[in-house]
Amino acid sequence: MSLDSMSEIMLPKIEDELKRAVSLTDSEGYGELYNMLAYHLGWIGAGSGAKARGKRIRPLMLLLTTSAAGGDWKAALPAAAAIELIHNFSLIHDDIEDDSPLRRGRQTLWKKWGLAQAINAGDAMFSLAHIAIIRLEETTSKLVAFDATKILHASCLRLTQGQFLDISYEEDGNLSMDAYWPMVEGKTAALLSASTEIGAIVAQSNNQTRKAFKEFGKLLGLAFQTKDDLLGIWGNAALTGKSAASDLTSGKKSLPVLYGLSLKGAFSNRWAEGPIFPDEVSDIARQLEYEGAREYTQNISDDLTRKALLALAEVVPKNDARITLEELADQLLKRQQ
Amino acid sequence: MSLDSMSEIMLPKIEDELKRAVSLTDSEGYGELYNMLAYHLGWIGAGSGAKARGKRIRPLMLLLTTSAAGGDWKAALPAAAAIELIHNFSLIHDDIEDDSPLRRGRQTLWKKWGLAQAINAGDAMFSLAHIAIIRLEETTSKLVAFDATKILHASCLRLTQGQFLDISYEEDGNLSMDAYWPMVEGKTAALLSASTEIGAIVAQSNNQTRKAFKEFGKLLGLAFQTKDDLLGIWGNAALTGKSAASDLTSGKKSLPVLYGLSLKGAFSNRWAEGPIFPDEVSDIARQLEYEGAREYTQNISDDLTRKALLALAEVVPKNDARITLEELADQLLKRQQ
Repeated sequence: MSLDSMSEIMLPKIEDELKRAVSLTDSEGYGELYNMLAYHLGWIGAGSGAKARGKRIRPLMLLLTTSAAGGDWKAALPAAAAIELIHNFSLIHDDIEDDSPLRRGRQTLWKKWGLAQAINAGDAMFSLAHIAIIRLEETTSKLVAFDATKILHASCLRLTQGQFLDISYEEDGNLSMDAYWPMVEGKTAALLSASTEIGAIVAQSNNQTRKAFKEFGKLLGLAFQTKDDLLGIWGNAALTGKSAASDLTSGKKSLPVLYGLSLKGAFSNRWAEGPIFPDEVSDIARQLEYEGAREYTQNISDDLTRKALLALAEVVPKNDARITLEELADQLLKRQQ
Repeated sequence: MSLDSMSEIMLPKIEDELKRAVSLTDSEGYGELYNMLAYHLGWIGAGSGAKARGKRIRPLMLLLTTSAAGGDWKAALPAAAAIELIHNFSLIHDDIEDDSPLRRGRQTLWKKWGLAQAINAGDAMFSLAHIAIIRLEETTSKLVAFDATKILHASCLRLTQGQFLDISYEEDGNLSMDAYWPMVEGKTAALLSASTEIGAIVAQSNNQTRKAFKEFGKLLGLAFQTKDDLLGIWGNAALTGKSAASDLTSGKKSLPVLYGLSLKGAFSNRWAEGPIFPDEVSDIARQLEYEGAREYTQNISDDLTRKALLALAEVVPKNDARITLEELADQLLKRQQ
């Protein structure tokens, strides 16, 4: 079955499981708390719908992993919902921490409900994730549920460690390229590797397979982030310089930027002078490309992707689900925005 | 053994277990994240020490419950640490949500490290709590650990629901007395009842005993909060009107205030006119007492305490640990500040 047909079956089930989890807050007196979470998840309010929901990549990855490892993906739904809730809890708090007014074209939760309610709504989403994964005991067993829960908890700590570095880096003018990887491992790779590892746990894979899936998720997460970094500077939206989407104007310490800084050339000199304005974006992006940062980042992204697919191929036969998983990886890494 | 001698043995063990849990963040590159958590927990920085740490009531309650139920309190230490970490995570976020500059006489985490790092440090503390309780599998069994984890997760959601109400109430000028209980059940009782329930789970109590302990914790939590409400208006610090500690100047919708508002008398009229200033505090407190709010709240507090101790007495023999638990309850409810 193709990725499209698998997604068509899985995505509605993921939404159902998410709704089941979040509906815990939908009781008398707590309706507005439910509304905040449902708004953030793209279910209600102005602009709700598929675009506001995001791509549900992590839960899809988890379910496809369970299938690829020979398990029943439906049994993994509680974990898929949990992973997506963790991802969204972190977005709610990130938006406050980054002072972002918009997410997926809509007002962020804190802009709409204020700081206090938004911090607390994020905490509620975090709690719901932990409650959601517990339901694995109904679809699998207590021991599988406990095992999966442990992986989820550990990944949450990694997530906050990555975010700690990200916030710290904003004020650090003297970052080396080494600083990049621990941040990205926490912010992006931890949750993707938890998705694939938990997918394998639900399929009751042996240790070797489980490790390979975990590695696959981690490498894919790193590749995904480097691709994101490329698009943040040389993607269509970023290049026009008219949107706030360019990582150059926001001063984000992405991999191409850190590479450029390490060269101490023209790009680095301009960076040191202060914020980059929208009308300079395409010139500076061209300069950074000229200095080799685009090729460098593209090579790393390709290399990570190759390694990710290799990790997968080593332990999983080329079944339908693995092909779909490879297709999803491909889609993530070839996207243009 | 008396409460004092039990505390003297247990408190250092609680600190050790907390340090074991929090030290997960104390690795290269993450030192400042560790410092934030260690500062908040009262271990380091200006003003560190016993006073900055708080009383560790919840973990003590948990360990004493395990003992009273015939279990080994040392086996419950991972859960005790987890409960205290949850409590402190919620304080870190509450301080931001309430815009509080001080906690236990020291700068709050967000005042010292800024909003972004403080939100994230709270999330890290939350994650550490979940990782901490997992260690019960080493001291008890996977099944006990899983059971305890579930109770912890559920109480975290209740905590955020209570906080949601608390924030909502700030702007609600038309609150009835019914609004009080669901807020306090979430904000205060949920974590205390989780402490006693998990204490009983570690002792592998039967369902009836477990329920009774849960009820004991819940009722004690409610009694504790009503007592806190009394001290917030008629405690020494509050009455002088010189400190910011009076619930009258901060406009907190505590039980005596809601009672006074329900009477629609002189107190209610003054409240409707706007914020209360420090130099009015003792007059208004006297008026509120005259209208019966102090006696009303004291009666409710006494009643809840009586019911809490009854719940306990029904299932637990009058062993040493139960007597200590009663002593702790007594201390909480007779305190003058």
